Amino acid sequence: HSAIVDELSKLNEDPRVRGVYLHLAPALLTGRVISTLAPEKDVDGYVVILSRFRAGEPRVFCPGIEHLCGPTGVSSEGQTVVLVGADGAVKVALRCLMERRGVVTLNGHKSSESLQEQVCVCVCVWLSPCVGDTAVGVWLVVGVMGQPNMCVLVSLQNVVLGSCRWLREQQYQDWSLRLLKLQPLNPVPSDIQISRAQTPKSVQQLAQEIGLLPGELEPYGRNKAKVRLSLLERLQAQPDGNLVLVAGITPTPLGEGKSTVTIGLVQALSAHLKLNSFACLRQPSQGPTFGVKGGAAGGGYAQVIPMEEFNLHLTGDIHAITAANNLVAAAIDARMLHEATQSDKALFNRLVPSVNGVRKFSPIQISRLRRLGLSTTEPASLTAEEVRAFVRLDLDPSKLTWQRVVDTNDRFLRKITVGQASTEKGHSRETGFDIAVASEIMAILALADGLGDMRVRLARMVVGTSRSGQPITAEDLGVSGALAVLMKDAIKPTLMQTLEGTPVFVHAGPFANIAHGNSSVLADKLALKLVGRDGFVVTEAGFGADIGMEKFFSIKCRASGLRPSAVVLVATVRALKMHGGGPNVSAGSPLPREYIDENLSLVTGGCHSNLRKQIEIAHLFGVPVVVALNVFKTDTAAEIALVCRLALECGARAAVPCHHWALGGRGSVELARAVKEASAAPSHFQFLYETEMPIVEKIRTIAQKVYGADDIALSPQAEAEIQTYEQQGYRSLPICMAKTHLSLSHMPDKKGAPTGFTLPIRTVRASIGAGFIYPLVGTMSTMPGLPTRPCFYDIDLDPVTEEITGLF
Amino acid sequence: HSAIVDELSKLNEDPRVRGVYLHLAPALLTGRVISTLAPEKDVDGYVVILSRFRAGEPRVFCPGIEHLCGPTGVSSEGQTVVLVGADGAVKVALRCLMERRGVVTLNGHKSSESLQEQVCVCVCVWLSPCVGDTAVGVWLVVGVMGQPNMCVLVSLQNVVLGSCRWLREQQYQDWSLRLLKLQPLNPVPSDIQISRAQTPKSVQQLAQEIGLLPGELEPYGRNKAKVRLSLLERLQAQPDGNLVLVAGITPTPLGEGKSTVTIGLVQALSAHLKLNSFACLRQPSQGPTFGVKGGAAGGGYAQVIPMEEFNLHLTGDIHAITAANNLVAAAIDARMLHEATQSDKALFNRLVPSVNGVRKFSPIQISRLRRLGLSTTEPASLTAEEVRAFVRLDLDPSKLTWQRVVDTNDRFLRKITVGQASTEKGHSRETGFDIAVASEIMAILALADGLGDMRVRLARMVVGTSRSGQPITAEDLGVSGALAVLMKDAIKPTLMQTLEGTPVFVHAGPFANIAHGNSSVLADKLALKLVGRDGFVVTEAGFGADIGMEKFFSIKCRASGLRPSAVVLVATVRALKMHGGGPNVSAGSPLPREYIDENLSLVTGGCHSNLRKQIEIAHLFGVPVVVALNVFKTDTAAEIALVCRLALECGARAAVPCHHWALGGRGSVELARAVKEASAAPSHFQFLYETEMPIVEKIRTIAQKVYGADDIALSPQAEAEIQTYEQQGYRSLPICMAKTHLSLSHMPDKKGAPTGFTLPIRTVRASIGAGFIYPLVGTMSTMPGLPTRPCFYDIDLDPVTEEITGLF
Repeated sequence: HSAIVDELSKLNEDPRVRGVYLHLAPALLTGRVISTLAPEKDVDGYVVILSRFRAGEPRVFCPGIEHLCGPTGVSSEGQTVVLVGADGAVKVALRCLMERRGVVTLNGHKSSESLQEQVCVCVCVWLSPCVGDTAVGVWLVVGVMGQPNMCVLVSLQNVVLGSCRWLREQQYQDWSLRLLKLQPLNPVPSDIQISRAQTPKSVQQLAQEIGLLPGELEPYGRNKAKVRLSLLERLQAQPDGNLVLVAGITPTPLGEGKSTVTIGLVQALSAHLKLNSFACLRQPSQGPTFGVKGGAAGGGYAQVIPMEEFNLHLTGDIHAITAANNLVAAAIDARMLHEATQSDKALFNRLVPSVNGVRKFSPIQISRLRRLGLSTTEPASLTAEEVRAFVRLDLDPSKLTWQRVVDTNDRFLRKITVGQASTEKGHSRETGFDIAVASEIMAILALADGLGDMRVRLARMVVGTSRSGQPITAEDLGVSGALAVLMKDAIKPTLMQTLEGTPVFVHAGPFANIAHGNSSVLADKLALKLVGRDGFVVTEAGFGADIGMEKFFSIKCRASGLRPSAVVLVATVRALKMHGGGPNVSAGSPLPREYIDENLSLVTGGCHSNLRKQIEIAHLFGVPVVVALNVFKTDTAAEIALVCRLALECGARAAVPCHHWALGGRGSVELARAVKEASAAPSHFQFLYETEMPIVEKIRTIAQKVYGADDIALSPQAEAEIQTYEQQGYRSLPICMAKTHLSLSHMPDKKGAPTGFTLPIRTVRASIGAGFIYPLVGTMSTMPGLPTRPCFYDIDLDPVTEEITGLF
Repeated sequence: HSAIVDELSKLNEDPRVRGVYLHLAPALLTGRVISTLAPEKDVDGYVVILSRFRAGEPRVFCPGIEHLCGPTGVSSEGQTVVLVGADGAVKVALRCLMERRGVVTLNGHKSSESLQEQVCVCVCVWLSPCVGDTAVGVWLVVGVMGQPNMCVLVSLQNVVLGSCRWLREQQYQDWSLRLLKLQPLNPVPSDIQISRAQTPKSVQQLAQEIGLLPGELEPYGRNKAKVRLSLLERLQAQPDGNLVLVAGITPTPLGEGKSTVTIGLVQALSAHLKLNSFACLRQPSQGPTFGVKGGAAGGGYAQVIPMEEFNLHLTGDIHAITAANNLVAAAIDARMLHEATQSDKALFNRLVPSVNGVRKFSPIQISRLRRLGLSTTEPASLTAEEVRAFVRLDLDPSKLTWQRVVDTNDRFLRKITVGQASTEKGHSRETGFDIAVASEIMAILALADGLGDMRVRLARMVVGTSRSGQPITAEDLGVSGALAVLMKDAIKPTLMQTLEGTPVFVHAGPFANIAHGNSSVLADKLALKLVGRDGFVVTEAGFGADIGMEKFFSIKCRASGLRPSAVVLVATVRALKMHGGGPNVSAGSPLPREYIDENLSLVTGGCHSNLRKQIEIAHLFGVPVVVALNVFKTDTAAEIALVCRLALECGARAAVPCHHWALGGRGSVELARAVKEASAAPSHFQFLYETEMPIVEKIRTIAQKVYGADDIALSPQAEAEIQTYEQQGYRSLPICMAKTHLSLSHMPDKKGAPTGFTLPIRTVRASIGAGFIYPLVGTMSTMPGLPTRPCFYDIDLDPVTEEITGLF
């Protein structure tokens, strides 16, 4: 309270302040506050700001400034204003308020210098509201020199009432979702038929239902929208909901349906138990969509819709990653060529050119100077040796780790020679392309917790090593600012909906072997705020729990600070039979009889081996496990009952069959209840290892405790690489194992829970920007190919209706 | 009239029809029509449909079906309905009406089979309105089996009134644009500073102001939106506006400002002369944005805003082109590998697999069979020889013309060897990457006049030649449907705005040498409908008029059927001095004194050579020319007056100086008046050549009449290539010359209007999908590189305000 009075006193004395607009809860609007404000500053003039409310929700009428408020005219703060005859400066001010740009908080947390430099400027001041009815908001619209007539008249009482109401509405509340009804057919039609038969509601409507303000939404067409990160700040004080991780037992090559379980579970939670809930999913790579059939939007009656938009361009994030990744690659090769063909002096003259007789380092070049230990900012002061150190990255062509990427299954790009045109003067070299989602930039997108953090991670990406052994970063190349610019929209999660009209975030899809295989930290964080204390956010880890879940805990939870309240472990009778000793399962071949007929002993074997082990892995981290048996139509009642019984014996807190594929959320209600109950129990999350341990010890801990190995065996190459990383200061990074997902061990054909093996570590790589070391156990393909008959043979669209055919 | 009665009679007898809702102009709502409709079909029951109007515009209240109508609740037809208690089937029907999906017109033009197959279906019937007050609309909401209670009650009178009003409103009217005020500073700040200082209005507001219905808009964030092609159908009967082409004299390497003239001109027309007008611009390649400074959004006070969104991802069209182009490339290499490593039988078994014992050709495979002259659809009926012909494209690796693309300046990809990994079994080959905008798919996007036409063009793209000399197409590869799916959103033009708040379409940006260098046909067509009869659409041709304008007339006008009413020929004193004999001008070097000081004799020389010739070229096509002198601050009054006087002497209809860069639209008002006047004059457009002429004759015609060459000289290779194209049936395609833009001749250093030269044709290529033959005169680079200090060194963003710095 006295802080407000102090701030008001300062504003009284600030000659630039021509009007102050108080926005306070009634309890704070005391005589003392009101009398503190100098009468000439109490805005009361030409502009009218009113708040009008209808039927319990804020409404806005902003003739002439609709463009500032978005289509429905509600500002991103939810304030509702009528502004008549506002002049340009007030518009700028309001826009700042609405977009939270150039906001200076009174308590000094943030300030935008650039805004204050503008000729015709308004400074907008806003005190973040505290929680509850005692909330404080102070808004100031401040006119400056050159705008003598700019004052603001407010109908103060309405504003204050509106403010209180708005603050109340920002608190947790049950969503009132308009659900989309499902009428499941039997037999279940194709995924695209189901998707197309349902009419999604507009993404604007969905956003409104889950408490987003219009200014926080950036629609991309009718069915998807990016959500601004400013939401995190607005809901700062809101308690998080429960975070639930969906992982799986070691799968068959056909997959066990983690994505459908994830979507079925949120459909059940939201649409049937009426609990606020969100699914956070990975964005799939577009390339494989045209190779082998199979989308990533779930399937049957548990899908994200429209599934074709989910599986194709979405909102362009992977395209942005491709552009950023390949800009780094082009910068590397061009730089090597320029260094090879120019003298130190010529390079320096070009890198730090004289513009109107003045040479100046750019900020990104100063950052390189600092890395080199040079404190100067004066180009002329560098010695010849320093010039040489500055201009020559001296990249060792044999130690470049950066590859180009493309979001196409293009096997002929796996290994290529570039630079063979005469213009490249013989500087050709071998390199390759990965599929776009294998880019380190994708892993960064998944782990960054804001634009600033992403900018820092992009800058520290190591692209190779100099001939003298120094790691060379994107910042050294001068390209990191441009990368952040290319990625500035990609960092916002994309909102979509399930078949039942419940919300989904789709954001980031890093590889699950050379990266950590989890969707983004930011999507989880936004969703946890939106669902509120009693709500659920369900997210999915790639591959089996030994890989995806372990990385979720060791890498994503560490980076984000988030803690899951429960793990859903997805199992299928098919996979359990395989682990119990059933014959080989492979894509494209008919399933052996064992998988079609009842076979309780194979099921028992699978439960006692792989299922038990995967439950134990979750318990290593102190998180309760709910086993979700994804039921197929060939499963018998006895098999289902057996799995549920044995899962409980193996330590699961609950084990339930689920039927979301055939029935939608209704088929997963039992699972939803079990998850709710498990999440309510006290949790004792703990990490598996401390990051300060030596790299080798961290690898050994994972191999022994998670995979069940006796020990690890490092190749001489791996040993040398680990030594280099420790010398370069990367010792404290967490470990991201690149191992087959088809076995707990490194041998894909060893099913169940293998023991008595030594895990070989072939080589060790690092994603310094993303922030992990990744040891390679075997060879990982980072570029898929096309089969002889790719599924594009069936894909087409009707030019009149624009409907797509043949996509899954 | 009697057609309506006939249709109604049929509907009376159709047992599926449970209710008919008449939507007619009063003049047509005669006793005969009303009495024809059987009373039990006259909808009058449970659902209320009303139209309500406010303040002259249609308004909609659709409780419960807002998601069908988009955020503001106005259907894409502009109808305004209140629907209470509607059940699912009615919702489907309304959605069909609103989205024009599954629409069956009574006069039988269109019908969607798939809709009729649905279990719970409504057939929606709509007669396209004719022009004016005699318009006819008949809407039918038809319930079917299983929905006995579904009837529709209408408040018929309101609907009819609303219909008339709506039809009237669809006719041409002057826009009422809310203009953004400019307050130009002196000296003129940087482009990004100017762009950022202006607050764009929301794209939804702009769309509404220019007569778009909400359902026709797909916003991408706040400042840009795609516009649906259904608009063309709605405004079918609306007369087109005037099409104005901005071309230039032969430029210096620094460029002469065609884009700024284009934008300045529409700012002047819309904001100052209050004439509806649209600019249609090319989307720039993203790669060069990070290489050498210089955006494509105009400059100074004539810009498209926000310029960073214009120059970066925009709405993802180039990303879609990249994905489509590279899918073709991956398909080619994978197919060659599969053919090389499999027997005919194995290929056939994989390409036409047995699914549940049945083999079936996909539609795209049947299309290949037809090309091979096989009429069967029964896989078993093929002879061994036919199987071989079907499964083997037998591509000749030395005759592949398809390159991969990337939207990055990556010189090391100019020539590469692919397929060097062991998995590709030694089938490596040399190829290369082009910059994405050089893809034939970009040229197709620019020339297609709808989704169906684009699908056809994509299918016929020739990617190489078989060993027996047959052209092999994307359709042969089976990939054309997938390409259309990837491109289905890219085909919609993107709406943005100028600094003064006037509308701009950004769509397609093909190369101006190996392609035709003009923005899309569809953007022009949409814009011409939106501006209406007295409005103006200003579009720009790449390079000098000898190239961009000639291709605009010979290729784009031919493909689109559109005819320009005037050409604006942009000249600068700088370029005229160069053509008059001034010293060399090059990027990066200081300008010689001649270009800074007054020099009337050089100016005279330039006017009498290059300017005169470029005006004559426009006259070859029968189009009047307005010369726009883009004034720089070093130009003297005498120089400006001289250019204007000599331009008139050389045949220009008008010649005016313009100052848009420093002043915005206000600086180009004189140009706008001249363009309006020139467009009002009768025009006598004619083509330069008939397409049926032999290819050689077409090339010679362009060389002699446009470039001023004595003759052409074909290399033996070019002769052979031309012969091949003529044999393959491509003789009647127009010609797209790939020539330097720095001279009217093929010799970049020959300025003015060279004569007495023979144009050498090195080689001749073809873009069969786009639909032109392109002879190469010299070497064209299709992949730029990065300089030693690329401009990414200066690009960064503020992580808090998200503002970009250093971009131009």
